[in-house]
Amino acid sequence: MTNPSFVLRAVKDVAIEDRPKPKMRDDHDVIVHVSQTGICGSDVHYWQRGRIGPYVLTAPMVLGHESSGIVVEVGADVTHLQPGDRVAMEPGIPCRRCSYCRSGSYHLCGKMIFAATPPWDGTLARYYVNAGDFCYKIPEAMDLEEGAMVEPVSVAVAIAKTADIRPHQTVVVMGCGPIGILCQAVVKIYGAKKVVGVDVVRSRLDIAKSYGADETFMPAKPAPDVDAIEHAEKVANEMKDKLGLGEGADVVLECSGAEACVQIGVYVARRGGMFVQAGMGKENVMFPITAVCTQGLTIKGSIRYLAGCYPAAIDLISSGKINVKKLITNRFKFEESEEAFELVRQGRSDVFKVMIEGVRD
Amino acid sequence: MTNPSFVLRAVKDVAIEDRPKPKMRDDHDVIVHVSQTGICGSDVHYWQRGRIGPYVLTAPMVLGHESSGIVVEVGADVTHLQPGDRVAMEPGIPCRRCSYCRSGSYHLCGKMIFAATPPWDGTLARYYVNAGDFCYKIPEAMDLEEGAMVEPVSVAVAIAKTADIRPHQTVVVMGCGPIGILCQAVVKIYGAKKVVGVDVVRSRLDIAKSYGADETFMPAKPAPDVDAIEHAEKVANEMKDKLGLGEGADVVLECSGAEACVQIGVYVARRGGMFVQAGMGKENVMFPITAVCTQGLTIKGSIRYLAGCYPAAIDLISSGKINVKKLITNRFKFEESEEAFELVRQGRSDVFKVMIEGVRD
Amino acid sequence: MTNPSFVLRAVKDVAIEDRPKPKMRDDHDVIVHVSQTGICGSDVHYWQRGRIGPYVLTAPMVLGHESSGIVVEVGADVTHLQPGDRVAMEPGIPCRRCSYCRSGSYHLCGKMIFAATPPWDGTLARYYVNAGDFCYKIPEAMDLEEGAMVEPVSVAVAIAKTADIRPHQTVVVMGCGPIGILCQAVVKIYGAKKVVGVDVVRSRLDIAKSYGADETFMPAKPAPDVDAIEHAEKVANEMKDKLGLGEGADVVLECSGAEACVQIGVYVARRGGMFVQAGMGKENVMFPITAVCTQGLTIKGSIRYLAGCYPAAIDLISSGKINVKKLITNRFKFEESEEAFELVRQGRSDVFKVMIEGVRD
Amino acid sequence: MTNPSFVLRAVKDVAIEDRPKPKMRDDHDVIVHVSQTGICGSDVHYWQRGRIGPYVLTAPMVLGHESSGIVVEVGADVTHLQPGDRVAMEPGIPCRRCSYCRSGSYHLCGKMIFAATPPWDGTLARYYVNAGDFCYKIPEAMDLEEGAMVEPVSVAVAIAKTADIRPHQTVVVMGCGPIGILCQAVVKIYGAKKVVGVDVVRSRLDIAKSYGADETFMPAKPAPDVDAIEHAEKVANEMKDKLGLGEGADVVLECSGAEACVQIGVYVARRGGMFVQAGMGKENVMFPITAVCTQGLTIKGSIRYLAGCYPAAIDLISSGKINVKKLITNRFKFEESEEAFELVRQGRSDVFKVMIEGVRD
Repeated sequence: MTNPSFVLRAVKDVAIEDRPKPKMRDDHDVIVHVSQTGICGSDVHYWQRGRIGPYVLTAPMVLGHESSGIVVEVGADVTHLQPGDRVAMEPGIPCRRCSYCRSGSYHLCGKMIFAATPPWDGTLARYYVNAGDFCYKIPEAMDLEEGAMVEPVSVAVAIAKTADIRPHQTVVVMGCGPIGILCQAVVKIYGAKKVVGVDVVRSRLDIAKSYGADETFMPAKPAPDVDAIEHAEKVANEMKDKLGLGEGADVVLECSGAEACVQIGVYVARRGGMFVQAGMGKENVMFPITAVCTQGLTIKGSIRYLAGCYPAAIDLISSGKINVKKLITNRFKFEESEEAFELVRQGRSDVFKVMIEGVRD
Repeated sequence: MTNPSFVLRAVKDVAIEDRPKPKMRDDHDVIVHVSQTGICGSDVHYWQRGRIGPYVLTAPMVLGHESSGIVVEVGADVTHLQPGDRVAMEPGIPCRRCSYCRSGSYHLCGKMIFAATPPWDGTLARYYVNAGDFCYKIPEAMDLEEGAMVEPVSVAVAIAKTADIRPHQTVVVMGCGPIGILCQAVVKIYGAKKVVGVDVVRSRLDIAKSYGADETFMPAKPAPDVDAIEHAEKVANEMKDKLGLGEGADVVLECSGAEACVQIGVYVARRGGMFVQAGMGKENVMFPITAVCTQGLTIKGSIRYLAGCYPAAIDLISSGKINVKKLITNRFKFEESEEAFELVRQGRSDVFKVMIEGVRD
Repeated sequence: MTNPSFVLRAVKDVAIEDRPKPKMRDDHDVIVHVSQTGICGSDVHYWQRGRIGPYVLTAPMVLGHESSGIVVEVGADVTHLQPGDRVAMEPGIPCRRCSYCRSGSYHLCGKMIFAATPPWDGTLARYYVNAGDFCYKIPEAMDLEEGAMVEPVSVAVAIAKTADIRPHQTVVVMGCGPIGILCQAVVKIYGAKKVVGVDVVRSRLDIAKSYGADETFMPAKPAPDVDAIEHAEKVANEMKDKLGLGEGADVVLECSGAEACVQIGVYVARRGGMFVQAGMGKENVMFPITAVCTQGLTIKGSIRYLAGCYPAAIDLISSGKINVKKLITNRFKFEESEEAFELVRQGRSDVFKVMIEGVRD
Repeated sequence: MTNPSFVLRAVKDVAIEDRPKPKMRDDHDVIVHVSQTGICGSDVHYWQRGRIGPYVLTAPMVLGHESSGIVVEVGADVTHLQPGDRVAMEPGIPCRRCSYCRSGSYHLCGKMIFAATPPWDGTLARYYVNAGDFCYKIPEAMDLEEGAMVEPVSVAVAIAKTADIRPHQTVVVMGCGPIGILCQAVVKIYGAKKVVGVDVVRSRLDIAKSYGADETFMPAKPAPDVDAIEHAEKVANEMKDKLGLGEGADVVLECSGAEACVQIGVYVARRGGMFVQAGMGKENVMFPITAVCTQGLTIKGSIRYLAGCYPAAIDLISSGKINVKKLITNRFKFEESEEAFELVRQGRSDVFKVMIEGVRD
């Protein structure tokens, strides 16, 4: 096959198909032979449901967006790359012309071309065409699996940046999946005084401890007839007491998407504190808005990556500050892509990051 | 009587009592003869319910906190005031020593002494003792009613500051009560490009137009069986279309406290937009948290006044930029304080700001 | 002639030449028939000296960069414009791909294509090709002279933005040329409490008063044997006393480029104050660096326009908030371009903005 | 003697005198038995010259302001300390009431009472009275010498905070004295990507390397007839090339006060970069103001400590992130204070921080 591609043909219907080799759209583009691709929850979500919010699958689409690869062709105006270079690929190309793009918020561009977001094809193929400036050369110290892990590390860097993390802060991270754990690692490296990882699965807390968490916490389930918000406030107070958080955490990073975690997180923040919503679960939750008001909180949403996140993530990995290899629990060949997706779909607590090797030449 | 005071003795039980003249606590204090006092919703709330959040009436307390007056005594260390000076009084004195006070967030001080918040007496008395630096001399161009109105204008200035208002923004204000209308006036003076006032009462929209609102909007009630959040999104889209807001407002200031307004407000903000919660209603609301995430929104709570708000409010009133007199719809003598409170309690749409004249000597 | 162009052939050598009509470089470009062009000091500087800093004239170059015009052709990907639209043109097109461009600082892009900066041709021709998103449609309320004035107003908006102007500030502007006066107008509209215009020419102070200045000040010349810095400090203290600036101005905008004004400006700022250098004169000046340290000052440089400045300037002019017509003191036909330049070169105090009408069809 | 004190009686005239034990000024004060005091350049400056800027010695004054000690008495309103507690003392007490104090910039308070700044006595005595909230309990892991070193570390933290240091930045520090080296350590801990220490003394560069510096640089002396500014630009370019700084450093921290270092520092910053002046030398320097403008630089002055710096410094020392003991090169007994001062005065390159032990009971 010229360009074997892992295609989502319809809901719950995937197959490896041959696709034409993609063409460069302009002289700033490059063509990359994809080497490693991590699977993200959103890939699985499209597979199982066919949509995320306003993005609806209406035609077959190649999956995958967390990829590294080797440059095979470069456009005439690309000066920082040449064939053979190993790169991490940022998967969303903004329009570069709207007010968001021009003012430094390209992640909010309404015309973003994002890999594996309908109608745009993803990276699970032999070849992927990308804008040259969204391909970042990785240093020799990094391998291509680490290159693919630049994507989730960039997500964590973006969350930290959105939270405007400062040294000496106390940071509580709700959720100890890959993103939650990477957030803990990142804020610790950025000089946090105390980092707390929160999850309902014991084994995830143990992994959190081996990354940036100074402390971990497993919240109790609510009694059957207790009001959810009251329970959240009680758990938050218990956390403050037990973990020595005083009047609360300077920053709360919500990486689980669970309603209870959102609620606990708001109450665990100190007056004037920062809460960033990064996890996605229920569209709407019961929310203590009056507490936001009286406590003078700031609640921010984090989505995708901000300018500078990919270089920062490469710095974190290549300098050895974050060991991403330990998060890769399962590896598959390109031909086994569906199996890899199935494993992620099952949501086992011992499965962290699943990696698919690219098509071998 | 030495110091006639309007005392909340218990829930729904108020009376004018004589109290001893207050004493200065240290050499930085001043004693003020209270001249004019506006009534705030929170005063009425304590009267009717005896509590707001964690603040519970457990002993008789003087009501009132929006006051102007005339200085009658100054402490030895007060150099900027002398007896006879007319002042607007900021009613919350922070501890000046905690990390909030020292880092410029004294409004979040946990040891704040706030007038008419249990257990602290308010200003509806002949005399009130206050910290000298929280008494602001008002210029000759302002009268004492305007001096009392510095408080609500400061609330609006604090909301605008919390929202980090910038010139050329599009600002939607949910709610056209006194605070909503003052917010509209303030952001217009600060260079807003378009200001929209939203309310369900037609007459309030008309008053909004005579202040800072360029446009007004009255949201439709939802049909009985429509999901509240879906309705909110629909109303928000209708507003964007009808008012030419494009992808949404740069800033939304929620000054109503109504659940529907919170929900509409979140959806009317543009990607990357700012939403400030200033109104207080239900403690908890159904909230589109995933939209906050995917739209990259910032949600902030505004409470009380930040450093510099009182001087800013005095500047706005004394320069003639905001006409606060038009908002004062009803005036009472000190002896009629209970009648004044009763009028506010009724919540009539034609009653904006009710003012109580101080005890005459 | 196809495309008559006002060409700087060498230092002090200009001529109208015919040039080929420019071609669009890609589908995002537009071709504009130039209608009005204001002359800027930098245009004259290239004419007289052939260089500004690192930019050196090495080949003939069309002059002019403050222009409005009428769209005559649009690229296939341009959706917001069509032939016949009247536009203000932002004259610097960044690369859109470097870290500056991507993080919202495109004005610092090292690959900027800037009109009339060697080796890039300027706008004083019948036709100019520009990126579509750097052409801003002007509303009907604005004429094409006002369209050309969007450039200097944008410079003033950028200076205000660099200074992070906030309402209720006291702002001192050193220099009352067109940029200084526009800065005064802009900060007044943005809610400044007091604006002071400073110049050594009385007539310019009078014009300043008719724009945003609440007060003006003419600094005394130093006595022959007085140390320049000591003189500056003395003048600054005199200003503070005479103009009621208390401990100093919140913000100083240096729009003259004169060494004495830089020095006075630093001393007139209050502790913790902001000083923005926008004027360009001597490359190096004697500078009170220890005062910057002990006073905790912030000194920033402002150059060109930030994202959003052009739309802001159009808002300011079209809403009637700034009357730019009053600043246009002299008008010339395209054929008289050299005379127009000669008038600006003379630097007469009664000449503010000189406008050159475009080639008539 | 009741309260032996090291008194500067006049320029170059010091002696140990007995002074009355100080009294608490109010119920928020504490009395501390001073344990260790570091000597600062400013102490020596008052000794040798009798003045710094506007502060002039007009009466005898106790020297010293970098001290730790043991609490011996606490005021009635002090709840976080008790006799026997070991504390680091922040030596400047602001008025808490002015607009600077209330808005979070207490370091700029015009009524600051600062130890060993005329007319205020310093800490080189048996007893020192201080505001309770400016005495910070140090953890068991820290000794009292480390407690005294909290002061210079706080200075470095304040410089980093003024520079708004962000992770992944390239930071050049001009000067490798104690403050320069501590700045390098602090920014490295805060996640800097590359830290460069610059000095003209080789041995200081070696010490820098053992702290936070990734690279060091020794600038060449200018040839006799070379223009200073041209030389600075040349050295800066040489640094960029040799150290792989690309277009320049994100941040430059000037900790030497030397004119050449100020000049080099400005040129070594990248476009849009940050330069903080912390060192104090000549009052006025020849300064490339046009480069500040065209490069869009930000120049800030750093003075004293901002809110939160003392706690941050204690966190850095007690967690073992910064080893301050290595900087203490010489120790003296209280009776040898003059010898200690003499050693600092000589300015030997092998003398870093000189510590004076407090009066033994």
